[in-house]
Formats: sequence, C-alpha cells, structure tokens
Amino acid sequence: MPNEIKGLNEECGVFGVFGAPDAAQLTYYGLHTLQHRGQEGAGIVSSDGASLYQHRDRGLLAQVFADQAELKRLVGNAAIGHVRYGTSGHNSIANVQPFLFHFHDGDIALAHNGNLTNAVTLRRQLEDDGAVFQSDSDTEILIHLIRKHIREGFIPALKQSLNQVHGGFAFLLLQKNRLVAALDPNGIRPLCIGQLANGAYVVASETCALDIVNARFVRDVQPGELIVIDRDGLHIDHYTTKTRLAICSMEYIYFARPDSIIHGVTVHNARKQMGRLLAREHPVDADMVIGVPNSSLSAASGYAEESGLPYEMGLIKSQYVARTFIQPTQILREQGVHMKLSAVRGVVSGKRVAVVDDSIVRGTTSKQIVKMLRDAGAKEVHLLISSPPFRFPCFYGIDISTRSELMAAHYSVEQMRQRIGADSLHFLSVDSLIRAINVPDAGDAPDGGLTVAYFTGKYPTPLYDYEAGYLKSLNEQERRAQGRLIK
Amino acid sequence: MPNEIKGLNEECGVFGVFGAPDAAQLTYYGLHTLQHRGQEGAGIVSSDGASLYQHRDRGLLAQVFADQAELKRLVGNAAIGHVRYGTSGHNSIANVQPFLFHFHDGDIALAHNGNLTNAVTLRRQLEDDGAVFQSDSDTEILIHLIRKHIREGFIPALKQSLNQVHGGFAFLLLQKNRLVAALDPNGIRPLCIGQLANGAYVVASETCALDIVNARFVRDVQPGELIVIDRDGLHIDHYTTKTRLAICSMEYIYFARPDSIIHGVTVHNARKQMGRLLAREHPVDADMVIGVPNSSLSAASGYAEESGLPYEMGLIKSQYVARTFIQPTQILREQGVHMKLSAVRGVVSGKRVAVVDDSIVRGTTSKQIVKMLRDAGAKEVHLLISSPPFRFPCFYGIDISTRSELMAAHYSVEQMRQRIGADSLHFLSVDSLIRAINVPDAGDAPDGGLTVAYFTGKYPTPLYDYEAGYLKSLNEQERRAQGRLIK
Amino acid sequence: MPNEIKGLNEECGVFGVFGAPDAAQLTYYGLHTLQHRGQEGAGIVSSDGASLYQHRDRGLLAQVFADQAELKRLVGNAAIGHVRYGTSGHNSIANVQPFLFHFHDGDIALAHNGNLTNAVTLRRQLEDDGAVFQSDSDTEILIHLIRKHIREGFIPALKQSLNQVHGGFAFLLLQKNRLVAALDPNGIRPLCIGQLANGAYVVASETCALDIVNARFVRDVQPGELIVIDRDGLHIDHYTTKTRLAICSMEYIYFARPDSIIHGVTVHNARKQMGRLLAREHPVDADMVIGVPNSSLSAASGYAEESGLPYEMGLIKSQYVARTFIQPTQILREQGVHMKLSAVRGVVSGKRVAVVDDSIVRGTTSKQIVKMLRDAGAKEVHLLISSPPFRFPCFYGIDISTRSELMAAHYSVEQMRQRIGADSLHFLSVDSLIRAINVPDAGDAPDGGLTVAYFTGKYPTPLYDYEAGYLKSLNEQERRAQGRLIK
Amino acid sequence: MPNEIKGLNEECGVFGVFGAPDAAQLTYYGLHTLQHRGQEGAGIVSSDGASLYQHRDRGLLAQVFADQAELKRLVGNAAIGHVRYGTSGHNSIANVQPFLFHFHDGDIALAHNGNLTNAVTLRRQLEDDGAVFQSDSDTEILIHLIRKHIREGFIPALKQSLNQVHGGFAFLLLQKNRLVAALDPNGIRPLCIGQLANGAYVVASETCALDIVNARFVRDVQPGELIVIDRDGLHIDHYTTKTRLAICSMEYIYFARPDSIIHGVTVHNARKQMGRLLAREHPVDADMVIGVPNSSLSAASGYAEESGLPYEMGLIKSQYVARTFIQPTQILREQGVHMKLSAVRGVVSGKRVAVVDDSIVRGTTSKQIVKMLRDAGAKEVHLLISSPPFRFPCFYGIDISTRSELMAAHYSVEQMRQRIGADSLHFLSVDSLIRAINVPDAGDAPDGGLTVAYFTGKYPTPLYDYEAGYLKSLNEQERRAQGRLIK
Repeated sequence: MPNEIKGLNEECGVFGVFGAPDAAQLTYYGLHTLQHRGQEGAGIVSSDGASLYQHRDRGLLAQVFADQAELKRLVGNAAIGHVRYGTSGHNSIANVQPFLFHFHDGDIALAHNGNLTNAVTLRRQLEDDGAVFQSDSDTEILIHLIRKHIREGFIPALKQSLNQVHGGFAFLLLQKNRLVAALDPNGIRPLCIGQLANGAYVVASETCALDIVNARFVRDVQPGELIVIDRDGLHIDHYTTKTRLAICSMEYIYFARPDSIIHGVTVHNARKQMGRLLAREHPVDADMVIGVPNSSLSAASGYAEESGLPYEMGLIKSQYVARTFIQPTQILREQGVHMKLSAVRGVVSGKRVAVVDDSIVRGTTSKQIVKMLRDAGAKEVHLLISSPPFRFPCFYGIDISTRSELMAAHYSVEQMRQRIGADSLHFLSVDSLIRAINVPDAGDAPDGGLTVAYFTGKYPTPLYDYEAGYLKSLNEQERRAQGRLIK
Repeated sequence: MPNEIKGLNEECGVFGVFGAPDAAQLTYYGLHTLQHRGQEGAGIVSSDGASLYQHRDRGLLAQVFADQAELKRLVGNAAIGHVRYGTSGHNSIANVQPFLFHFHDGDIALAHNGNLTNAVTLRRQLEDDGAVFQSDSDTEILIHLIRKHIREGFIPALKQSLNQVHGGFAFLLLQKNRLVAALDPNGIRPLCIGQLANGAYVVASETCALDIVNARFVRDVQPGELIVIDRDGLHIDHYTTKTRLAICSMEYIYFARPDSIIHGVTVHNARKQMGRLLAREHPVDADMVIGVPNSSLSAASGYAEESGLPYEMGLIKSQYVARTFIQPTQILREQGVHMKLSAVRGVVSGKRVAVVDDSIVRGTTSKQIVKMLRDAGAKEVHLLISSPPFRFPCFYGIDISTRSELMAAHYSVEQMRQRIGADSLHFLSVDSLIRAINVPDAGDAPDGGLTVAYFTGKYPTPLYDYEAGYLKSLNEQERRAQGRLIK
Repeated sequence: MPNEIKGLNEECGVFGVFGAPDAAQLTYYGLHTLQHRGQEGAGIVSSDGASLYQHRDRGLLAQVFADQAELKRLVGNAAIGHVRYGTSGHNSIANVQPFLFHFHDGDIALAHNGNLTNAVTLRRQLEDDGAVFQSDSDTEILIHLIRKHIREGFIPALKQSLNQVHGGFAFLLLQKNRLVAALDPNGIRPLCIGQLANGAYVVASETCALDIVNARFVRDVQPGELIVIDRDGLHIDHYTTKTRLAICSMEYIYFARPDSIIHGVTVHNARKQMGRLLAREHPVDADMVIGVPNSSLSAASGYAEESGLPYEMGLIKSQYVARTFIQPTQILREQGVHMKLSAVRGVVSGKRVAVVDDSIVRGTTSKQIVKMLRDAGAKEVHLLISSPPFRFPCFYGIDISTRSELMAAHYSVEQMRQRIGADSLHFLSVDSLIRAINVPDAGDAPDGGLTVAYFTGKYPTPLYDYEAGYLKSLNEQERRAQGRLIK
Repeated sequence: MPNEIKGLNEECGVFGVFGAPDAAQLTYYGLHTLQHRGQEGAGIVSSDGASLYQHRDRGLLAQVFADQAELKRLVGNAAIGHVRYGTSGHNSIANVQPFLFHFHDGDIALAHNGNLTNAVTLRRQLEDDGAVFQSDSDTEILIHLIRKHIREGFIPALKQSLNQVHGGFAFLLLQKNRLVAALDPNGIRPLCIGQLANGAYVVASETCALDIVNARFVRDVQPGELIVIDRDGLHIDHYTTKTRLAICSMEYIYFARPDSIIHGVTVHNARKQMGRLLAREHPVDADMVIGVPNSSLSAASGYAEESGLPYEMGLIKSQYVARTFIQPTQILREQGVHMKLSAVRGVVSGKRVAVVDDSIVRGTTSKQIVKMLRDAGAKEVHLLISSPPFRFPCFYGIDISTRSELMAAHYSVEQMRQRIGADSLHFLSVDSLIRAINVPDAGDAPDGGLTVAYFTGKYPTPLYDYEAGYLKSLNEQERRAQGRLIK
C-alpha cells in the first residue's frame, strides 16, 4: 500500500454492481476499499435502465466525490467504478475511468485494470482506418474494436474484440441494461464475484470490496471468462478456451489488501507464510524483528514467530502524509528527515535489528530505512526481503516496464547490500514464494498458477509491442537463460 | 491516533524553534509529526528579528500550507507552530493558533496545549475591566493578563500571569527576539527541549518532533518552569516552586506517538508493558491476539508475548478515510459497514479471538468491532482493555469534560460487556497501569507522577470553574470515595 | 452582451495566431475581448512546432486560467483558443473547446463557432461505420470526416469534409506546423484576419480581438474560403465556389462588441443608425430617451439624436452580478427586486420615458424593465425595439432552435404590448434594419447580404435535420408565406 | 466604479436592517448594490434576538457567499453587513467587517465606513491600559472605548466614545435586540434610512440599497446623530450638537452609484450638471463628445447636450475583467494593450474627440486613454475633467492619504497636459462643482455643505495624527494659503 515509498504502482481497481438500489453509493464504498490500487483518479458511471450518468476526476475518491451531490446525481440500480494510478505525464481527466461513450444506439461505460501488450499496434491500425481516440489509455481500444464489429451484435462483437487484445486485463462494461466483466486468458489480474442479500451481483478487483458492502463471496472470475449480469441474473460465458492460470504474484507480495482472498488464499496469511519460510531459509542473529509498515507487517510477524525472536514496532508510519506535502529540502533529507517513516529510538537503540520488507525496487527506500535505524542507535541492521529479487519488468499492469529502475537487474545481492548499507541482506527464493502462496486453484499450471516473471524473466504470454525493447534490455546470459535470441 | 473512532481528542500540539535558518520550515516538519494531536487547524508564526509573520487556517497542516508560498512568506530564524483539535461549534479561524497580537510596543504570538480550569472567572473579570476578546479560546486570557501588568516588564508580567491561570498548560510565546515556554505546576501536558546541530534550541510537545528535525533531546520541561530562549541561549527559570509531577496518563495510553519518549519512557514500551501486565491480570483462553489498529498494536503484541498466543492481523485500518468522506447510510451501518476498520475473515474465521484495545470511551466502537469480528466468523471475541475504566472527565485538555458520554461512568464491567456483546471484557488495574509506565522522574509524587483521575476521580488540582458541575455529576458513593461534599 | 437577461446566447468565439512568440498569451488576450460570445467554458491549444499543448475548462477565461502556470505551460509560436456558450445539460468539460485529438501521424486541435444543420445524420452514419465520439458537440464530426479521407492527405481530406457539413460555421484547426481557418458558404458567422507587427497572422471572430493584440486588420474571411497559415505565410484557398453572403444580422443587432467592424460596418454605428431609423419610423411623445444597458445604449443615443429628445441614464446595470449570485426569492422578485438592472428614480420620476432595447426574446425582461420604471415613478413608458420582431429560430449557432420561447412567434405587437405593460411598443422594420447596417460587401446578395430569417422565416440554406421539426412549428399561413408544404 | 483604473478607492459600504424576516438575505441584496464601495471583503452579522451569527471573508460578496448555506445560517430578523476596500498589505480576514465581539454580558457587531484621524493616539493609549487589539482596523477602537465605559450602560458609553473619535465615520452596531447607527459631526460619509412595507427600518450608505429591497426613503442621517432601532421603532438621538454638514464631494463626482440620492441630490443629475458647467467653462472645438465608462458617462452626456456636440461611444469597457486576470507583459502594455478599456476605431478614426473623465489621480489612466484614442485614429484628443484638480489627500475614508501619488499636487495643468499627451486639458472649477451639486440641505454651511478639501486643502476638521505629516508635504506657498505654520 505505501505507494509513495515503493516505485511500484498498481494501475487500477474496478468495482461493479447490478440490481441494487443506490448502486453508485455501493460502488463508492467498494472503491474506497480498493483505493490502495490507485490514488490518481476515480470515477463512477451508473445506469437507471434508461440513461448512464458519470462523474470522474483526478484525485482520491473522497476528493472526487467531496461534493455529495455528485454521488446523488448518479441514480439507478447498476453502476461501475474505477480507481486509477497514472503517471503524471498522462494524468489528464480524459484518462480517468470509467470511460463513457455515447452512441445513437445506446451508451457504453468501460473500466479496466491491467495492461495490453499489443495496444500500440492495434491503435495504429484503428487510426489508419479512421478511428479518433479521446485518451492515451489502452482501455479505449476495446470500444473501437467492439464498434468495428457492432453490426454482429454487442456480445459477439465483444468476444471477437477480447480475442484481439493481449496482455493482462480485467474489464467491466456497463450498458443501460447489462453489466459485463471479462478477464484475460491467464487471469493475471484478480477479479471476483459476490452477491448482496437482495440477490444483486457485485464484481470487484478484491474481496475486501465485497466485504464492505456486505456481499457474500460467490467465486473468482476465471481466465478467459465473460460474465454477463442482467435482470435474469448471472451468466457465465467465455470468449476463449485457451487459458492457463498465471495470477500476478505481486498481488500477494505487495499490492492487495491483507484481508482480501484471491483464488482461495488470504493475502495476510500468504505474507505471514512468506515470512516464516524466509526465516527458515535465512535465519539471522538479532535481538528483534521489525517490519516496514504497513505492507510488510504480516511477513515480519511470520518471521518473528518462526525464528522465536520478539516482534517489535521499530518503525512507524505517519498517517498524515498528503500529496500536497511540502518536501524536505535536500539538506534536511541528507540529515535523514523522512516525512513518512520514523524509527523508534526507544525500541531499536543498542539492538541488533532484523527488518523485514516485502520487496526492493530502486533500493532508495531500503537505504533510507537502514540509515534511519542506525541513526536511532541500532547496533546491527539485517534486511530480509519476503520476495525474490525483482529483476524483470511487468507488462501486465504494474507501472514498471523498463529494467533500468530495478536495482536487482543491475547488482548482485552482495552489491545491493553494500549500496543499501545493511549488515546482511537476504531474499526469499522463488520456490518458497510459490510454496508460501500455494494457490489451491493452480492445478498443474506452471509456477503454481502464478506469474513470477518479475523474478525469472519467464512471461506467461508473448510480449508483442514490448518484445523488441525487452530483448534489448537483456544481457547475453539472460537471453540464453530465457531461450530468447535477437535476430 | 484514530480520533474518528475514539471519542477522545487531545486539544493540541506545539512546536517552537529559535536560532535556525528556515525556522518556519522546521516548524512545519515538527508539526507534521504532531498532527495526531490535532487535525482541525494549524498555524505558524515566524520572526525575523524585526517583524512577526503568520499563517494559520482550519484543516490539516498539509492543507493549511497547500500553497508552499505561504510557508516561504514566514521568514526568519525563529518560529512557533500549533496543531489544534476543536469541536465544530467553535471551529472558526479566529480560534486557530498561534494567536498573533500587535502592540505599538511589539508583537507577541502565543500557542497553547492544555486547558485552564479558571478561565470563565478570569475572562469575566477581564471583560468587566474593559477587555475585548477575539476568540473563544482560553489561551487568549494569558495575553490579557500579561498586558494588565506590562508596565512592570514582559517577563515579570508573564510570571504574574502564569500564577493567575490554573489547570494543565504548555504555553509557547514568540516575540521578535525571544521564544518563551512555560509548563503548568503539575506538568500535566508534555513538553520537551532539543538542540539542533547548529546550537539552536527547539521546544515541542513530543520528542518525535525533535527526531524529525534531527534535534538532540536535551531535557523535559519540568513543572512550573519558564524557559527563555534568545540570542544568548537557553535560560531555565521558574514562576512557581509549588510543583508536583502529575503527567497525564492518557498520553502514554493513547495520545502520544509510540516513538515519543515522555519523562524517560518510550511510549511503545509503556504500551507493550501494559499489554503484558494485562495478560498477567487477565489471561484468556483464545486462539490468537489481535490489536485495534493503530494505537493498540503495541499493547496487543505485549499481550501476545506474555500469553504465548500468536499475534495476528485480524483488523485492518484504511489509510484513506478523509474528513470529507460520505458516510454510510443508517441501513448500511446497521449491516456493519465501517469505513475505517475491516475484519480479516481469512484470519479470524472459526477462531477464538482476544482483541486488545487501549480504552473504552462511549463504547460504540467496541460494539462495532465485536460485531465485525463475529460477522467475519470469529467463534469467540474477548475484549481486553489496556487501561482502567474511564469513569471521570478530564479538565486538562482532553475533550471530555462531562461524564455523560463515558460508558464506564454509568455501567459496571459486566453491563458494559453485555452492551458491547463480547464474550468477556477485562480492564487493566490502576496499579498495573502505574507500574507499566513507571516514570523514572516520579520521585515520591503520588500515583507514580501520573494523573490517573480519569479512573479514580482524584484530581491533582482544584477544579475551580468546573467544581460545581463535577460535584453534581457524582453519585453519593463517588462523592464519599473522593471526600467531596456538596454544601 | 447581457446574456443573463436575454434568452439569446451566441455559441462561441474563436481566436488563432501563427508565428508569434507567446502565442498562447496573445490568444488569452484575444479571447478576453471575445468573452461576450461565450461564458461557459474556455480553452487554448498551442503548438511549439513539435507538440500541441492544451488547457480548457468550464467557466470564464479568467477562471479557467486563474493559475497563470497553466498559461505558461502552453508554449510555442502558434495557438488557437475558444470561448463557449453551452446549455447546462451538456456542460461537461468534454464539450469545452478547442478539442485536441492525438494520432500516431500527428495531433490536431479544433475550435468551432456555429452550428451544423446535418449533424445528426452525419453522426449516425459515422457511428454505424465504427466511429466513437467523445463529446456531444457537432464540432467533433469534422475530425471524423477528415480521418475517413486522411489517406488522401490532410488538406484534400479537409476540403471534402467541409463540403459534407452544412449550416453556419467558422472552424479553426491547429496542427503542429499549420493553422487553418474555414468559413461556411454563406459567411453566416463572422471571421477576420489580422497581422501583427512581426508579420504573424491572427484569425478571430471579431476585430476587437485584433485590436487588443495590436494586429492590423487584413480582411474578413469570405464565404467558402479555406485559409492556411504556415511558415510560408498566408494562403487563401477555397473549398467551394457556391457561395452567397448572408452574415447573421443578430451580430450587428445584439451579439458583437460595439467596437468590432464586421464586413466593413462598425457595430456601434450600425446600432446608432438602427436607433435613428427607428425614430423616423416610430417617433413617440416623451420627455427623454433611455437605453437598456449595455447593448442598447448605441441605438438609444441614435434615437435621441434623431428625435431631438434628451438622452438620459434611466437604467443602470450592476457590474457585480456573478454566476454564483444567490437569486432573490419569489416574493422579492414579485416586489421587483432585480439584481442586474436598477431604475434611476431621480431621473425618470414623473417623466414620460422612451426606452430603447435591441430585441425581445421571451418578453420577461421587457416586462420587468417596464415595471421597474413605473415603480421608480415614470409617468409613461414607451418601448422601442431597434430590430424587427424575432419570430423564427436560428439554426446557425444562436441558442434558440425552437419557436416556443419566442414571444413574437405567438403574439401580435399589440398583444405583446399588453403583456409587457408598456404604453406603446414599436419595432424597427426589416427594410430599415437592412438599410441601417448597409453591408458594403453585399453586392447583389439578397437581404443586403444579411441573414434576416429570424424575422422573415426565409433561411439562406436548406435546414436538413431541422426541417421536419421546423415545418411542424409553422402555422398554415406561415407555411404558405414561406412556400413550404408538408407532404 | 472602475476602481482598477483609478487610484481612488472608497473604504466601505454599510447596510443594516431591523425587524424583517430574512434580514441577512435583505442585507445581501443591499450590499450587492453597494459592492462598488468595496470589493476586497464582505460580511454579514445577523441576530435572532438571542444570538449573533457571522460570516465574512475576503473577496466579492458573491464569492464570500458562494455557498448559499452560509447565508441561510445567518438567521434572525436583524442584520448588519459591510463591503470593504482594503490595501493588500492589511488584507487579512481579521480586518473584514462586520466585527463580532463576544462578551459575557452580550455580543456586539460593528461595521464602519470612514476613517478616524486620531486612531493612532487612541490605540496607543488603550494598549498602554491593557487593551489587546485583534485587527489593524481603526474601527475596533470604538469597541474598546465603549467597553471602558460599559458600567455606565451601553448607550451612554457609546455616546462618550463617539465624542472621543474624530474624522469621518458612519458606524452601524448590532446587539441582539438593537441596531444603532451613528454619523460623524460633519456628515462626511453618506448614510440614509429607509422603511420596508412591513414597517422594518433599513440603514444604508446609499439609497440604491434601499431601492433594491423595496424600502421607502425616510431621511438622511444627519451629522452628529445617533439612530437607535429596536422593537419600539426608530429613535433619533444625537451624541453632539457641534455639527456642520460637509459631505464628501467625491461621492458625487466619482464614488456613489448614479441612481443614489444623497442629501436630496441624484448623483447622475449632479454629474450631468458638472458636465454642463464644464462645457460652459471650457467649450472645445471637436467633432464629438465621449465619456470614459462607466463613471463619466453622465458628465459626458451633460457636456454633449450643453455644447451641442454629438455624444458617441468612443471607449468601451470590458465586463469581464476579473481580479485574477493575467496582466499583459510590459511589452504588450507598451503596445497599448489594455484589458479594461478599448477605443472604438470606427467611431473616433479621423475625428477630433472631446473625452470627458471625472477626475485625474495619478494620470496614468488618462495617458493610456489618450494613447488608445490616437492609436485608433483620433485626430485630436481634448481631455475634460468634470472636477477640479485633485491636489490634497483625503483623511476621511478615501484611500489616498499622501500627496506623493497625486499628479495635480506636483504639476501645473499645462505640465499635466504635456505628460498625458492631450491636445488640451481642462478642469471644472471648485465654484462650478459646488453649484452643480447644489446640496439643498446645505443651509449656510461653507462650500455648499461639501468637503472640497481635496481641491483646496481646507479641511472641515483638525487632522490630529495626520497633521504633522500633512504639513511636511505642503510647500511654503500652500502652507500660507491654508494659514498653516510649522512650529
């Protein structure tokens, strides 16, 4: 969750409901629990069976709907909503979802979590055929593809279009009388279905959003599925049968809320187990275990339990760091002033501290944490990472698509330790990661039904538009290891 | 810290610095770490040796200084700042501190944490003598008293005035060439002194504010002291010698940041110790211990360690609950929808859960937490409170000055348990509380140098304006227990 | 200009410049003088030869660019801008112009003043062919048409597209290296070209926008012309030769700024002449002439001069009526409380007053003005309108496209007088209107080169999508008079 | 009214009502018509007979009450309001009126138009006696004086206080059951009384504010009067009998709204008469007369009528110049770009133009106007000022209290003409000014009951705190002319 410290950012969270009074309000609460998946923009589109109503803007959900009248305007029994992460360059309101498109034969709203790997190619083809795009977003491509085939009917057009787009995606579409959800053939992004007491169905990125609206969990959406919800209830269809589960492991490691259950695994439990296996693989000689709040606290408590070391609060995180916060000057920063994290001197002073963190991206935060703990008197600082080294980019919706920013892509573990300044540095192995998560739905899918390409370079899909750039970023040895050759 | 759930609210936090370039900026960072002490308003006054500069407004610090230009306008080497809690009724900008008063013989700024017990009487006397008040705040009384005596000189006038006001108070005053700090004769509110690398002195409500600006801790301000900081350095003076330490125990239990050190005691360690002693006094038969985030996590981990039960994350707290958040409808609330806290179903389902919380004020949050855990499948819910029952109001700066809101003032523990719906309910004893905190500076002060009147009704000072109302709120038995008689 | 009182609202104003440093800033000042043409939204797109930069929002220009940084971000030597009137229903930011479209082969910005009469038909055809529209605006149709033909090259595609759209239009298009302007075949909306001292060319809806940036007037854009401005200078081309001047007479009567010169006629002079001819056609027995500020002051002074009656200030207009103004309650309104206009008691009391106004749309303002003057003591109130009765809607960009709101469409002059409560009511004849304006460029164009269809029902073009609805709104007699038959 | 162009700014407008439902709303409309008297801040305090309610902020009235809920909160049958001009330096919200003071024996609200000449002295004395001021405003002094005497009762204390303050002032005070108005002994600032249909009384700076709330004019408040309005009706009292009418002539020349009637004189009529007498004193050989909009249009039409020259619209003023407007760069300004005024080329080109303006303060606007007209082709530009040269400062509430800014204090008329660049420059004589206004209430008061000290240096009162500085600003000759000697 602490996106400001990490360099990793999930692209989005989605929520939809069909058949419930105050659908927009339910969507608002659902999106609230998904806010950790995106803080740059939020929006809701509702339907009253006749028309679609939209409100969206940049900022946090509570800012976008600061005026309650905006939410009240979104009448009707169906709605979809979206929270968005976006890089500053493209952070115009035109890119805030859900998109709402008006056609003489009916309006369509669209919300998306994920990333398409053949977006550039598709967009160029569409523009050459006369298409006019209104956003920079990949998401809009789907609607243009649908409209190309619209004379065949909406659902057939949608199925054809879903077979044309590639990558990791979870789409929600709202028409005046229908809510549609679709998941990519590898189920890379999470998406689940719930049901309200009144029988209405809910679709959300994570189960925490079902919980807040008191919806009973029904099932996870499966790879390649097309879910249609209308007045007749829930229809489970599919647009492809060439599927293979490869859910993003970073959801378990870092992104998802600890109370969410993805493909049968409670995220907190998976993290605690990562901590336990980390303690077995890498026991350290220390006086206490501390976690980096908030996302690493589960793993830290697992490490503490397994190792028998006391679990302490050695770092605390401010609740009040706002986007508008005035940043410390360079001089203050060099003195170790950090707005978000503080070391607890009274706890760590004079002690050998084992710090558990969930991942290292650029390494800058790790370095600051080690300095902060030493400044507060820690005698030794051992850094334990509850995931493997993050060496390869994500092309499925996490905002790291180049290797240049990844510390582990360029340095050995020992080099990283030196740069970070820790007394020791250890990572969880890929095998232990898979074992800690242990997806029950995995069947015989490789890597336990997980995408672990960030650690291994072995992606579950072709990379299309990204392939050439990716290949160039690999060194000789990596290319061979992955069986990739530049022609 | 989670003020929205509790009914308790600290009145303020203060920060001052003299002799450092960018004094206002340092004050901004210092106030940032004190934001948990007040979220209703914030302000800074700086001095460049010739003039005083002010900016203050309602809202969080980051909102008040959303425009960085406002901070840059506050030039000079000295500054004081304030974060404020205020009830909505009086939440006008006129009450946001520091107050800045212009006089033909020099400006004075004033910031205050605490509450005066004879404010009504003093104000009435002053008004009858021609005084015109600009705020509803007690704080302003001090300046009117000072001006009454001003012909005797500023410091003598201040000392006289400090002997006229009663209650719990920590004052900071800024003149163009001087920073002054004063603490009440019982040291009820915390106040500490630090020193920057360049020799400049810093004064703050908590040591976490020293840490963020990299100031070395010098000492706590002692009861009855008057601290003057000017170009010649630090002068420790006093305005009274009739002093006796009675630091507010709620600072340790609930208000202060876990990384702060008050009178030699790290707050996290005190809380963890409360949890340990609670486990000794009230062991329960459970499968796990969970804490109510964030302020009860330390006590919960103490309880877990002492009891040998696993420490789990059974409740999580949203980071994104804003003041502007649209509240759930009554129906949703009855369904258990809670914006701030969520139970982790995958952790508590089917389990006997021991929940540690730091206090019960009105009892409404406790009731919601128990319901939430049961809805998530908990088999048993045992509620363990790491402080004694809160039965008597605070007149020294915590925003509970009537007994009507206090659940423990009206119900026995068993009655409370029933209303809250827990399987068992236990409180820490007053003796264990005193033992857990264990203030080393206490000497032979009663109650270990703490104010524990909230639990015992035995206040360290006369109550002045509040005495009559307080007496009326007591029943016969309580009056006798406290040796108080209505004439 | 007083749009709030009238029911008439011009759709837009446009401004463009190519070849000048700080092009966006010049556009800002140009748009400032065109603000009377639209107060609902404003925007600017600039080009630095490589990229296009956009800022637009709802509200007045000064609000949209309240943060000067937004204007500074719009770098480059070329820019186009737009001020927009829009009905509240469609007042989303998506409809605020200029529109900016991104294509892999280059961006295009588009701004439009006018209205297309075959927009519905074109849009339906485009959508059925797969087009996805992003706004409700007619304007966007042009870009979809262009993209359909884009493989033939941009200028040929644009010419083809301009022959497909019908109605009244003035388009500005900006590409990274080119500014293009196009006017409809009847020149219904005004558009002029100017030149800066440095040789850069400027295009604007009115000459007042040339004046403010110190541009020398070059020429009016003529019907059917396509103006291309690039590094090689100004290129005058055309996309059709089937043209006939029919400039909108309402520009002279009401919309345009009095200092603008349209097709050789200074607007103030035209209005003053309307007042003079009105005095010749309808002399009244009165003590003074007063005008309704601000748009009728020219005509009123003309009437006064011709009639020899004194010209007085009998009505004054508040400068401070904001959009956010809290409207008087019904009771206050019935008492004659009016936020915008006040009668000057000391001037009109006891007098016979001749009030000159430029037009009557719904008649509600006229009624209020008469009441206000009588309440201030006027003995007689004679209402003189410096244009003919407004009986037929405008389909070329003025926001009256139904007859239901037009008082003169439903009542005789005598009936209008009674409803308004004036002692007499007179209108200028169509012939005098044409004579007063006296367009020198008119040649042998009918109606002196003016569109006077609002008074006669004789439109200079077919009405396409509007024809059926318009026919239904006519009575038998009107249909015959216009030679129109319902099949 | 065009404050941005002039250097002159009225300090305030006041409005009060007692005994009418929705008193705050009436006050809002009243203040709306007084907005020309101050645009920097606005506020209203209402009373419901038990409590006083306040809202005030910086900005225009419509901005301050942009949220209608703020106005609705101000319940009760009585209210006072204020619009304020303030220089940027002191433009804090603390200075925005009405001030509201809370006392244990009842609240008091206070609004003021004018300026006290012995404020510095009084404030110093009060502070030395212990007073704490909350604003920089002179206004607050009155409340401190009242509280000094409060044990004698409110009205006696007020009368004593009014005899202690000197200068030009119109005060409104609101207590929960009473509205009080007081005017200085010379009646320098205007103040009038009206009555609503329901019998409630209204007090306002100008009669235009009576008109908008449909109040019947009752009488002007006379010098030295104290008006008390309560449930028993209107009580006319006085605090001094040493009075002599000297109403500020600038109200007629420039500040007041043309529809207001001050001491029996309609402002428009006075201005028109100034124009007529100016034409008699200074006929010029020209083709037309034009006025500088808006405040000089009355005088211009008077000049035109008297001279027989045509009255034309040669300058127009933009309605859309906002405070936030981005100012033209220096280069653009030098090119004559002016945001507020434009010359009408089609009117003035090739013509000899007589421009009538109401006053010259710094001369910069006059210079710009002349340049603008010449740039638009005017052959000759004759500047005619409908008041005498403004040579001496105002100490009674107009924001010019030093002579350094006044062009006429430093240059002869011929020197002014050269600097401004006009072909001729003429001013109205003091005698004609007095004759044009012709106050019927004047009796045998000197200067026709007007303050004309701005032109003559002969002030109707001693200058107290300002005397020394003023004397220093005079040259030998001026000192002698005024019979003033420096000791």
